[in-house]
Amino acid sequence: MEFIVDSECLNRAIADVNKAVSQKTPFPILSGIKIIANKESVIVIGSNADIIIEKVIPLEMDGINVLEVKEIGSVVLSAKYLSELVRKLPDKIHLTVNEKQIATLKVEEVITTINGFQSEEYPRLPQIDEMKHIKMHSTDLIEMIKQTAFAVSKSEARPVLSGVNMLFKDSKLTCIATNSHRLAWKELTIDSHVSGSFIVPSKSLMELSKLIQNVSGFIDLFVTDSYIVFKTNLTSLYSRLIEGNYPNVSGLFPKNARTIITVNTKQFLKGVDRACLFASEWKNNNVYLEIKKDTKLKITSNSSEIGKIEETQTINKLDGETDLSISLDGSFLLEALKVIKEEEIRISFGGSMRPVLMEPVGNNTSLHLISPVRSY
Amino acid sequence: MEFIVDSECLNRAIADVNKAVSQKTPFPILSGIKIIANKESVIVIGSNADIIIEKVIPLEMDGINVLEVKEIGSVVLSAKYLSELVRKLPDKIHLTVNEKQIATLKVEEVITTINGFQSEEYPRLPQIDEMKHIKMHSTDLIEMIKQTAFAVSKSEARPVLSGVNMLFKDSKLTCIATNSHRLAWKELTIDSHVSGSFIVPSKSLMELSKLIQNVSGFIDLFVTDSYIVFKTNLTSLYSRLIEGNYPNVSGLFPKNARTIITVNTKQFLKGVDRACLFASEWKNNNVYLEIKKDTKLKITSNSSEIGKIEETQTINKLDGETDLSISLDGSFLLEALKVIKEEEIRISFGGSMRPVLMEPVGNNTSLHLISPVRSY
Repeated sequence: MEFIVDSECLNRAIADVNKAVSQKTPFPILSGIKIIANKESVIVIGSNADIIIEKVIPLEMDGINVLEVKEIGSVVLSAKYLSELVRKLPDKIHLTVNEKQIATLKVEEVITTINGFQSEEYPRLPQIDEMKHIKMHSTDLIEMIKQTAFAVSKSEARPVLSGVNMLFKDSKLTCIATNSHRLAWKELTIDSHVSGSFIVPSKSLMELSKLIQNVSGFIDLFVTDSYIVFKTNLTSLYSRLIEGNYPNVSGLFPKNARTIITVNTKQFLKGVDRACLFASEWKNNNVYLEIKKDTKLKITSNSSEIGKIEETQTINKLDGETDLSISLDGSFLLEALKVIKEEEIRISFGGSMRPVLMEPVGNNTSLHLISPVRSY
Repeated sequence: MEFIVDSECLNRAIADVNKAVSQKTPFPILSGIKIIANKESVIVIGSNADIIIEKVIPLEMDGINVLEVKEIGSVVLSAKYLSELVRKLPDKIHLTVNEKQIATLKVEEVITTINGFQSEEYPRLPQIDEMKHIKMHSTDLIEMIKQTAFAVSKSEARPVLSGVNMLFKDSKLTCIATNSHRLAWKELTIDSHVSGSFIVPSKSLMELSKLIQNVSGFIDLFVTDSYIVFKTNLTSLYSRLIEGNYPNVSGLFPKNARTIITVNTKQFLKGVDRACLFASEWKNNNVYLEIKKDTKLKITSNSSEIGKIEETQTINKLDGETDLSISLDGSFLLEALKVIKEEEIRISFGGSMRPVLMEPVGNNTSLHLISPVRSY
């Protein structure tokens, strides 16, 4: 194997796939990065038990020659040393691999050799069925992830809840995430008749968001038996799917509200953020909300040892009963408020023991549900 | 005690003094920040066993009223809660403290109460002798610290070596730091006839650098029995001095060199940085330098398991013998090279078992000495 590549291109590709590589893997070969030289491109792959990331370096990028392949072949090299080294090499890197799997990287007067692994031992990529795929805007996908992935369960007690449920049905994609105390729900109309329900680890989706954040245009989704694949022109991320049935959440959204208020999102967020200061003394980050007769919202938290914070905010619109009080987990409130971009939110209360529903005003594709906590 | 203060001014002062506060202190009162309201200013103090930081908030800053003191007094409040809270409060904060040491911070509709400590229990500041002081440019002082503090010993085996020796003599300040394997030396002419030798913990100096990095103009140094004090208009840092005698290093600098080379600083730094990749496999980060007959410098490192890196650089000027090779700790080389701003450096070798001397070309106020390491 032999090729000459622009060091910045190689560096970027290696940095991206390196995100999937763990040095703590029980399989030494997975601590490496696989490099495949084809006639028309070099492919770089990094993986762990959950994610595989693949980057393609083409011969030309933005009309500039960045790659010249002299001999096809493949090798697996230590991710740790390769990534650090390539970051420090300037100009064009001349990479050759001999029959003993020893790679030589040469840039002008700098010559480095790295002992490689047997590339045949590197696991194969799952097969993609190119016929069955869904196309969507990368910005839409990133937004779907941002609106929901934060809400998954951090515990592994119920593995299905550690993933985001991606539900394709009737030309719609719905993403749902819950830790059974709060739930985030987001819907998007898509141009596809594929249907199916998949549970994707939230970590994979977070990694994907970072990976494609600078990609404009479309992204293709493929599903295999146990993997979901996100594919752009030069980048692919394969994520393991979580097995099991995701709970049906459609019955959870309350129908009848006792009180509905509309408040300014940012102002409410700032108030809850301040209240969280003392709330962290509690097991459930207790923050108290009180709706008073004078259409004021009182936000309070206290810690007997340290102090107390309370503030009063204006309610823009109020329907239903007043004199309602409820105790919520301040960090759940905060995380939901942080992803809402709309200026105003509508909050529906069913009573002090019923879950609270938050929706951005003027956008019915996004919902957040938060259960109350005990206040004693 | 009662005053109204611009929240950003208070926030900045608290963030600065908070750097000295540790939540792990065995004395609960030291986990707090002391606030003193005088007629003309509010003083904020944070401290630990080694450092005391004091910030002054005057009535006016840049011609704008930022403070109005209604009643003088003092209080000690939890650094953790106070710093987080003030960061989140807008506009002007109205702070009052009652006779039970409960502080109330009020901004518009936000009311917070924090239980305070008895401020009398807070340790007193060391007395400064205003007569005996040294004045110098803050940028000069920052540069002296940057050039030397990195070279101190990280071990506490010989406490004096964990500090920087600040030597005032004959209108000169000399800063020296060593871990007994490498040494950094920097000299500055100052306008003072004070003489004395002080050992200042490197951590204090690092903290000072950050604290005064945006301060232009002069800084005053005062010395007490066990403290050195750095004082600008609104900021003071008190640092404990390390007791003991600093070793006399003047005899360590080699007089007769076998080989003297001049190389480009950045190019050499990059080469050593690359060589450190495999050097980290060794106990002493072994990097090999070889001076060849053809006025070339070869930089090599290798790890039998992983690989090898070698590169050849041009020597700009060579005096003395060639065919010299030496093994040095790559990380010591790197740290010294990183602080040298001059384009070229002169490196003097006394032989493969003798310390190496590095000096920036065109600047005789700065020296770096590095001992060789075993290459087996």
